[in-house]
Amino acid sequence: MRITCTQENFSRGLAIVSGVAGRNINLPILNNVLLQSDKEGLTLVTTNLEIGIRTRVRGKTEEEGSFTIQAKLLTEFVGSLKKENINLYLKENTLTLEGENHTTKIKGELAADFPLIPEISEDNVVLLATEEFKKALSQVVFSASSDESRPELNSVLFELEGKNLTLVATDSYRLSERKVALGQNIKESLVLIVPVRTIQQLLRVLELDQTEETKMIISENQIKFSFGSTEIISRIVEGQYPDYKQIIPKKFSSEISFDSGLLAQNIKTTSLFCQPGINDIKMSYLPETKEIQLRAQNSTAGDNLSKIEAETTGQLGEIVFNYRYLLEGINHLDGNKGILRLNEASSPALLQSQDNKEFVYLIMPIRQ
Amino acid sequence: MRITCTQENFSRGLAIVSGVAGRNINLPILNNVLLQSDKEGLTLVTTNLEIGIRTRVRGKTEEEGSFTIQAKLLTEFVGSLKKENINLYLKENTLTLEGENHTTKIKGELAADFPLIPEISEDNVVLLATEEFKKALSQVVFSASSDESRPELNSVLFELEGKNLTLVATDSYRLSERKVALGQNIKESLVLIVPVRTIQQLLRVLELDQTEETKMIISENQIKFSFGSTEIISRIVEGQYPDYKQIIPKKFSSEISFDSGLLAQNIKTTSLFCQPGINDIKMSYLPETKEIQLRAQNSTAGDNLSKIEAETTGQLGEIVFNYRYLLEGINHLDGNKGILRLNEASSPALLQSQDNKEFVYLIMPIRQ
Repeated sequence: MRITCTQENFSRGLAIVSGVAGRNINLPILNNVLLQSDKEGLTLVTTNLEIGIRTRVRGKTEEEGSFTIQAKLLTEFVGSLKKENINLYLKENTLTLEGENHTTKIKGELAADFPLIPEISEDNVVLLATEEFKKALSQVVFSASSDESRPELNSVLFELEGKNLTLVATDSYRLSERKVALGQNIKESLVLIVPVRTIQQLLRVLELDQTEETKMIISENQIKFSFGSTEIISRIVEGQYPDYKQIIPKKFSSEISFDSGLLAQNIKTTSLFCQPGINDIKMSYLPETKEIQLRAQNSTAGDNLSKIEAETTGQLGEIVFNYRYLLEGINHLDGNKGILRLNEASSPALLQSQDNKEFVYLIMPIRQ
Repeated sequence: MRITCTQENFSRGLAIVSGVAGRNINLPILNNVLLQSDKEGLTLVTTNLEIGIRTRVRGKTEEEGSFTIQAKLLTEFVGSLKKENINLYLKENTLTLEGENHTTKIKGELAADFPLIPEISEDNVVLLATEEFKKALSQVVFSASSDESRPELNSVLFELEGKNLTLVATDSYRLSERKVALGQNIKESLVLIVPVRTIQQLLRVLELDQTEETKMIISENQIKFSFGSTEIISRIVEGQYPDYKQIIPKKFSSEISFDSGLLAQNIKTTSLFCQPGINDIKMSYLPETKEIQLRAQNSTAGDNLSKIEAETTGQLGEIVFNYRYLLEGINHLDGNKGILRLNEASSPALLQSQDNKEFVYLIMPIRQ
């Protein structure tokens, strides 16, 4: 193996793949990045056995070959160099990296010991506009459960039907649903559950390798996202996603229209007085008025009452929310104007943008 | 107590004083800020019994009075509000804060229970140009020891003599010395030891209350810094500062002139290969050449050799440094050009800017 590439390209490639190479004590080779030089350049691969990332780096190859090196060290090292050409060559179990003013030897392990990333057939391909897809993923992924003992909720649901992709995530306290219009018609409906960690890596890497279109390739047990010079391959979670559609109310008795920035600012102020650990703030609304009220109180701090300009229709009422869930939902709405639709104090409320109804956010109240 | 002030002024005042109000379990009133309204406005005071901070906030007083409130809560609360006028008034043990769209009640404790900040006589006053003083403090404070069991090293030394203030800090591995020219002549030489925590608060607050001139008032046991509408009063450390002058070599056998940015970048690259916990990198220099070499190696990562453009004069040599100390010194030099003066490998080395000799940084080598 002997290849020359620029510091910029090499550093960018390493940043793309290094996210999944962790500190695996049982299988130390998973801490490494696989480097493979071929006629057209260099391929970098990392995996944690659940997710694999593969990217291409342009380079001038003198000798084909492959090797594996600690990903964290190599990424930090190449990132610390100035812009220059770097010559890489392998000798025994050591990779030498030469730049204009440094000679660096890094120990590694044989490529033969590195796990294979599964290849999947391209029978089932869906094309997505990258910017819209990124936005949609970011509007759902924060609602997923972080509880790894419930793998189907520690995931994002992908539903493909007709000309739509629907993304869903929930931790059972709140739920995000986002529809994405497709440029193609899906022949056979598909439902799959993709781990949150895969989505987080995908969002991270889509920022580093920006392209207009993302290809999603689906097989029975795997999903692959392909864009620019990068591929992310992940296992799919087995299991049944909860029947979320039945908990989204079809009708509401009240509706509050608000300015998102103003409501968010007042939630933050009021939250300083909520009961720690409960995070409760009470929202009160009168019918056909121009304001709503937020209130929180606790025995050590005191209490706060805020009045916020808003348009209300429907019935009089009050409802108690965990302010963190409410705030996160508002922060993910498109535009400046939002709507909150409500029934009685024990029923879930629905949050939407006034401009864009593709995204809905359901939030369970705290029962009094 | 009844007073009106703007959210901006009140929030800025609270940010200035809240740095020393901590979470004191033994004496909970120290978590509070003292508010005193008088004819001209509001005074805010906090203390941790070692340091006291007092600042003035403009306001329109309707009724004089005083009270104490949890500093952290009040600072976060006022900081979360929009720009508006805030009306404060006291009723029983509760402070009410009213804005355009909120009414907030915060519980507190009586001002009578708040500790007194000592007043000190203004017999000994030194005037300092604030920008130069801030720069000088920042060049020494990072070298002070963080070991609280050695209070005299967990401090910055202030030496006043003739037309000079000399600031010194050391943790016994490296030492910063910075001279500041005064606009006045000190009649009687003075040496005092000021706690690092006081200097850190001073640097923080000098950013929030910017003025051209800082007044330093010295008494037997206290020091006061006065600027803008703010005062910081601190105890002085009793004890003897080590005789640091004797360890600064007067003569050197070699000298290396370098570009600070280039050397810092190469130290960072090389440091990835040092021995963890030892942080050792070796610097080698030949006489009358145009480069120096940095090298580090460890058994798990590998090794790195970097060659850096530099002018060397004097003898051939090599010396081992803890890269963190070397890097911190270089990062605090004025301008882009530095000089490192050396004797044998076991002697301390001296780092200076080529342009500005007011600041010297002494660094102990790692003995081989």
